[in-house]
Amino acid sequence: MKIEVPFSKALRLINPGPVVLATSKYEEAVNIMAAASTTPISHDPRLLGVSISPRRFTHELIEQSGEFVLNIPGLNLARQVKLCGTRSGRNIDKFREAHLTPAEAKLVSVPLIEECLGHLECTLVEHYSLGDHTLFVGRVVVTQAEAGTFSETWLLDDEEAKRLHHLSGTYYGVLGARIRV
Amino acid sequence: MKIEVPFSKALRLINPGPVVLATSKYEEAVNIMAAASTTPISHDPRLLGVSISPRRFTHELIEQSGEFVLNIPGLNLARQVKLCGTRSGRNIDKFREAHLTPAEAKLVSVPLIEECLGHLECTLVEHYSLGDHTLFVGRVVVTQAEAGTFSETWLLDDEEAKRLHHLSGTYYGVLGARIRV
Repeated sequence: MKIEVPFSKALRLINPGPVVLATSKYEEAVNIMAAASTTPISHDPRLLGVSISPRRFTHELIEQSGEFVLNIPGLNLARQVKLCGTRSGRNIDKFREAHLTPAEAKLVSVPLIEECLGHLECTLVEHYSLGDHTLFVGRVVVTQAEAGTFSETWLLDDEEAKRLHHLSGTYYGVLGARIRV
Repeated sequence: MKIEVPFSKALRLINPGPVVLATSKYEEAVNIMAAASTTPISHDPRLLGVSISPRRFTHELIEQSGEFVLNIPGLNLARQVKLCGTRSGRNIDKFREAHLTPAEAKLVSVPLIEECLGHLECTLVEHYSLGDHTLFVGRVVVTQAEAGTFSETWLLDDEEAKRLHHLSGTYYGVLGARIRV
């Protein structure tokens, strides 16, 4: 039997996408934002999309710099993800507040988050205003993953390296077993 | 220590999004396609994105009809997901091949897949050609979920109703425990 899902919760049906920590930087301003609305788009060229509200500080920084990084946290960073998803970087230094370490990226001037499992460095190619959000389309220019966590696919065999998926509010799903169908 | 991820596998870092079975219909032609590249976009209006290659039959059908449905399969449909993701609907009737049951949608003329856990009925509002794919932006018009599987968020407490996330090829991750941070 199917129940009608309240319209305000409609998009939660295609949550949970993987949680990412998006970093951005323009001049001296740097920020970290937790984002759950991302998608692969194209293979050639390698494009991805991330949907961000214009109210976010990150939105400003990406528009100004034309660059961003998606950092992939493991389960061990759950509390940091929550902090980065609930506080605005306009007033606080989230690297310091969350005890995360900025690291130099290879091709963009935005910092990576050292503690994350993987990083996608992106340059902005398009952005579309869609409803109350902006869909930023980035071209992936470098990708890295923590040794032992990725080989052809995410391996998901280490508890700390399991992936977090945002369900809503303070609820997350944990991506456990890798299976072959 | 970070390793460089081969560029051909870059987008797998933001896999796994939840697997959906997208249904589409134009005149007498109906199809099911497995898709892993979806994202919530806007809350007001309620918009989502799904990235589909122009080579797919589904691409044609959505362009012609301006409607589609994203159906959410559980772990119990893993084999059907694989079939729908590897065969083209140009030559076969995937409902019949995969033993799936078409059901009437509430507001669109595209069939739902009865065996799925949830459905998002969508009307097309935009589509963007981005690299080798098209990003279809749909406005969600009705959403339903199987009773007992969704309340505020996906509950993930029933083994069969656990969510499948595509890692790559025949590899999937299973979204297990719901945690609160």
